[in-house]
Amino acid sequence: MRRSRAFIPTTKEAPSDATLASHIYLSRAGFISQVASGLYSYMPMAKKVITKIENVINQEMANAGCEEVELSFVTPITLWEESGRSEKFGKELLRFHDRKDNMFVLGPTHEEMMVDLVRNRVTSYKQLPINLYQMKIKFRDEARPRFGIMRGREFLMKDGYSFHSSVEDLDREFDAMERAYKKILARLGLDFRVVEADSGAIGGSGSKELMVIAGSGEDTLAVCDSCEYGANIEIFLGASDEAQKDIIFTSVKDIKGDEICPNCDGKLSLTKGIEVGHIFKLGTTYSAPLKAHYLDENGKAQPFIMGTYGMGVSRIMAAIIEQNHDESGCIWTKESAPYSVNIIISNIKDEAQVKLAEELYENLKSLNVEVMLDDTKERFGFKMKDAELIGFPYSVIIGKELENGVVQIFDRKTKEITPINAQDIKTKILELL
Amino acid sequence: MRRSRAFIPTTKEAPSDATLASHIYLSRAGFISQVASGLYSYMPMAKKVITKIENVINQEMANAGCEEVELSFVTPITLWEESGRSEKFGKELLRFHDRKDNMFVLGPTHEEMMVDLVRNRVTSYKQLPINLYQMKIKFRDEARPRFGIMRGREFLMKDGYSFHSSVEDLDREFDAMERAYKKILARLGLDFRVVEADSGAIGGSGSKELMVIAGSGEDTLAVCDSCEYGANIEIFLGASDEAQKDIIFTSVKDIKGDEICPNCDGKLSLTKGIEVGHIFKLGTTYSAPLKAHYLDENGKAQPFIMGTYGMGVSRIMAAIIEQNHDESGCIWTKESAPYSVNIIISNIKDEAQVKLAEELYENLKSLNVEVMLDDTKERFGFKMKDAELIGFPYSVIIGKELENGVVQIFDRKTKEITPINAQDIKTKILELL
Repeated sequence: MRRSRAFIPTTKEAPSDATLASHIYLSRAGFISQVASGLYSYMPMAKKVITKIENVINQEMANAGCEEVELSFVTPITLWEESGRSEKFGKELLRFHDRKDNMFVLGPTHEEMMVDLVRNRVTSYKQLPINLYQMKIKFRDEARPRFGIMRGREFLMKDGYSFHSSVEDLDREFDAMERAYKKILARLGLDFRVVEADSGAIGGSGSKELMVIAGSGEDTLAVCDSCEYGANIEIFLGASDEAQKDIIFTSVKDIKGDEICPNCDGKLSLTKGIEVGHIFKLGTTYSAPLKAHYLDENGKAQPFIMGTYGMGVSRIMAAIIEQNHDESGCIWTKESAPYSVNIIISNIKDEAQVKLAEELYENLKSLNVEVMLDDTKERFGFKMKDAELIGFPYSVIIGKELENGVVQIFDRKTKEITPINAQDIKTKILELL
Repeated sequence: MRRSRAFIPTTKEAPSDATLASHIYLSRAGFISQVASGLYSYMPMAKKVITKIENVINQEMANAGCEEVELSFVTPITLWEESGRSEKFGKELLRFHDRKDNMFVLGPTHEEMMVDLVRNRVTSYKQLPINLYQMKIKFRDEARPRFGIMRGREFLMKDGYSFHSSVEDLDREFDAMERAYKKILARLGLDFRVVEADSGAIGGSGSKELMVIAGSGEDTLAVCDSCEYGANIEIFLGASDEAQKDIIFTSVKDIKGDEICPNCDGKLSLTKGIEVGHIFKLGTTYSAPLKAHYLDENGKAQPFIMGTYGMGVSRIMAAIIEQNHDESGCIWTKESAPYSVNIIISNIKDEAQVKLAEELYENLKSLNVEVMLDDTKERFGFKMKDAELIGFPYSVIIGKELENGVVQIFDRKTKEITPINAQDIKTKILELL
């Protein structure tokens, strides 16, 4: 893509309510645009990052034998009445009437819809297990939408649901999903922990959260420095109901951070995590009230034993920036970067610079490298600042030194600039990617 | 994918209100599931087809220099008041209040949102043209949702919007989009016509529709047998307002179909088309009321000159089946098929059959061929009927003849069965794809 044709409206101003780095830099770098409270549009650069995250998820889901579906976003309230969640979800569940006065909701999660899809279609234990997922917008009418896309009202989520004929088979799938989720986050270059968690409004017994480690996270975690142990602080302190949580939130302040890991004898640290994934063992929480049954080996009707697996796609984009930014802007990881390389023509009036840049650009494109060519008339300093704000992993600077046959590679993460013989630049870039 | 693990709930029963082939077969073959009137969920096979259609669109949009975005689906009513369309759209525009009593709508199209995204961000003629598109669900609260996913309420659409500083540049882009749209439909294997059209509720001057030729279409077209000329019947007969249309709808009955093409001297035929794409020259219809301006070469503020380009992604899936089906079910085209090849093990108890089938399955998978392995315990006749209903372009039948070293290839379109030496099967399949 040519920068002169690309829609990347970078700006110096951050939204007045922005406190998180991801909110500030995704706005300033021209990735996201606020439409209303908690509602955001994704501009081309954000859409590219989202697509990359989706591709990684789709690949790992396919490897794990899951199938993708797409459920309707507008869903009848009747299904929520069947499960009893219409009341439980409260005002976060946005309700409205259509022109014929039937009530619908905007799907905040899709357990009911998925059970409805499978009931009467999967009728025998022989057809189990199945694991279906979708990548689709959700809507939760949050009381206080905040932190940009981190806690918006409309957001993009991968939600998966598995159906089983035994608890053992659910346990097996739950472990497989944990492995797949870990692989996804690792591929995206994130530092994260899997922690024991509370089941919240989804229900069921047994759940784990995938937490990206970041000082700006909304959750407090107790994580071991020696082993993989981690727990949401409420779980670690043994909270099981609202009343207990109040006590705990008070006592968290007293925690010194010298607690001992219950798993090994390592030291526990407290840290604020960002929840990007949540996996649950639902059991028959939804299948029983919705009367979703299969016939077992003895021909007896049984409710499906279920699991549910969520991953916040748009939130992962924000989490990547929470973990990877500096005072100059975004620093995208290899697998998440909208473009891997940015070629900067220092002086657009210098024919030799333009010629080399155009050649390299076409060359890299033909090798399927995702490359941006900054062919604008801006001055060099502006182009560099712009590249740092957007966060391309590497920039090739084609400037004055070209007279001596030298160009430079700028590493966004380290901010190091390395001179390279102009003739070796293509090889060097391919090595780095 | 193994058929034994896949969620493809085929059935003998069609929905009671289904009259169109696409509605009947996409339901029976386990592709779509009705949630409520005009609301459908896509099961795994439909999702795969949708993804293929999206990939073709994305590739051609990238080739045409367009950038993908994703606008929020829930949009503030205030934007619709600015453009004056809040009233014009009537009850099809679904309105609701959020928990803070602000009014929003579910986006039925996104002209206002896109203008809002670009205004104040693109400020100079130097930044033009740009062409942004998205692939996202839309919601139109139709009075009579019908024909399955052909005229649903929630549907998937590619909507694109271009911004220009001159009418000539809009004309150029409009032609480029027409070429791109034609390429997309041709790649998907569809027989279609581009026809002159009415601008409807979108507004603006000058528009063309991309019509898939099918007896079941909702629109009547006048198309030339000798040249590329085609027009929606209202346009052909010169209707320009509602009053005239009434006269025309009466007079259509009197048309004998022996009219002469206004372009060449060829014979015109009447045929019922399915609208799958619509491109418009909007001019300043939205940019003027929304005060979306750029500075021209003389530093004077001017409203953007715009074009808009829509394509019905889910409707294309239905149109493919309207044009490609027989009494046994769906017949997918090469670029749209959820799986290219289906391997049928006639007798799952025959070890030699299973061995060859498994080898071929793994072999084709490793070559990135999208292949289904029917490893179920059903009898052969059932498996064949199932394959025909689903509509895989080719099935490899591994049956009794394997004793003589022979397998068979079933061509879904012609229903021809060709015997092949078992050892040549892989080569033959790769030739066909």
